[in-house]
Amino acid sequence: MYQEYLEFAKEIAYYAGKVMMEYYNNPIDLDYKEDKTVVTLVDKKINSYLIERVKEKYTTHSVNGEEESYQGDGEYMWVCDPLDGTGSYVNHIPVFVFSLALVHNGEPIVGVVYDPNENKLYTAVSGEGAYCNGTKIHVNSKRLGDLGYKTNVEIFHNSIIDEVSLIKELKDPSKISSIGSVARSAMAIAEGYFSCDIFPGTEHGNCDIAASYLIVKEAGGRVTDLYGNNQRYDTGIRGAIISNGVSHEQILEIVKRYTVKEFLDEKRFTYHS
Amino acid sequence: MYQEYLEFAKEIAYYAGKVMMEYYNNPIDLDYKEDKTVVTLVDKKINSYLIERVKEKYTTHSVNGEEESYQGDGEYMWVCDPLDGTGSYVNHIPVFVFSLALVHNGEPIVGVVYDPNENKLYTAVSGEGAYCNGTKIHVNSKRLGDLGYKTNVEIFHNSIIDEVSLIKELKDPSKISSIGSVARSAMAIAEGYFSCDIFPGTEHGNCDIAASYLIVKEAGGRVTDLYGNNQRYDTGIRGAIISNGVSHEQILEIVKRYTVKEFLDEKRFTYHS
Repeated sequence: MYQEYLEFAKEIAYYAGKVMMEYYNNPIDLDYKEDKTVVTLVDKKINSYLIERVKEKYTTHSVNGEEESYQGDGEYMWVCDPLDGTGSYVNHIPVFVFSLALVHNGEPIVGVVYDPNENKLYTAVSGEGAYCNGTKIHVNSKRLGDLGYKTNVEIFHNSIIDEVSLIKELKDPSKISSIGSVARSAMAIAEGYFSCDIFPGTEHGNCDIAASYLIVKEAGGRVTDLYGNNQRYDTGIRGAIISNGVSHEQILEIVKRYTVKEFLDEKRFTYHS
Repeated sequence: MYQEYLEFAKEIAYYAGKVMMEYYNNPIDLDYKEDKTVVTLVDKKINSYLIERVKEKYTTHSVNGEEESYQGDGEYMWVCDPLDGTGSYVNHIPVFVFSLALVHNGEPIVGVVYDPNENKLYTAVSGEGAYCNGTKIHVNSKRLGDLGYKTNVEIFHNSIIDEVSLIKELKDPSKISSIGSVARSAMAIAEGYFSCDIFPGTEHGNCDIAASYLIVKEAGGRVTDLYGNNQRYDTGIRGAIISNGVSHEQILEIVKRYTVKEFLDEKRFTYHS
């Protein structure tokens, strides 16, 4: 059954990739640079298509999309970020992906992330490993401080990490990037390029992370909230630390140390596990 | 004559793009993720090819490359960053470019930047405008605080900008990115996607900036050192502020305010205009 869900998710992913690239390469009449109109258009088109297809095929399933949701009456929920990396997309930087997970009682059981720029489809089914275009992938085994260790830190409005201190701690600046798409960065972790990602997003954060959670986990990595706890992916999250596993505790320690305190108590951290 | 130099630069750019993509798509036997071996290999191959071609065609010209240089006895110098965005390249993030300028007495007069991921060739000849694949390009006219304003900040070891404060100042986090290639970011400015870039690099910084300086200037923008002064591009630079022009003074003010003081007096800032 999971395999059938995966096939369904892959279909949606390829459709999403087609829509993304269509508007990316032909920014029609909209002023592409002016605002997020075109992104919203692409986002919504993919999100609506997903809802339509789910209603038609899995009548009891719900959809939790970043743009639009739909409440079914069963235990399964499709959690989707139609376009992760909107900032890159709108500025014509080829770092953006589609992300979709099937979540059962809060736990992702099927996940796909599709990068249309490189035509890479990342997939995972619970307990069956992680794959990129059908080839098994695995996280690296670098610990913080090792040669080639690489952390991605997404910059957010209420950025909770003091990056200056973090840069000083990590010493080598090439160890930090901020590529603008947490799901793309998570795939770099699953493939063994990056070692860790710090993601402060909360409100719709589960849409960004649900698929990555499963793919990284199945690739041998670890995903928790910013405090090291497990969390549900059918509702808002308390940020995410996505890692290769071996460096997870080290990063948790750093996040604890360099968190900008003033943001910690904000009500945006509403979900309690 | 400038047109001939431009044709020569374009030839080198397409060769560089071919070499980059060859190793990017076929990471041969090297452990691609382990260190920068493959980058150095690609860098050096392009750099050596440039020197060889310059020696053969323009016998009095010099070459100032990030990997290798060659001293001719004339006033012209080819200033080159064979692969800008090595961090992205080695981690398989498609944000890297080739950059080459012909500099006469410190002033870039011909510039090309080639992005092989999107097959985009950016070109400029002094006084003749800036082009992307032959189509004229122009900077945007957004001031800091305007809708869609976007600043790119490259993260460096001795990062001179206090990013937390900068984020607070700019308010909207989508206004800041750090895409990992200053030349690619400069092209986003020349095309009107980004509005500004803050680049703290110094030692071989002229190799990163020389071509971008001319292309952005010819696209209607402005490029200075971090203090708002003009500078030569045939030697190390004092960082760079690359902007659409209208926001230049605003950004200079911010850089002044949020510069992490401890780095300012370091001897890495050795060039004085």
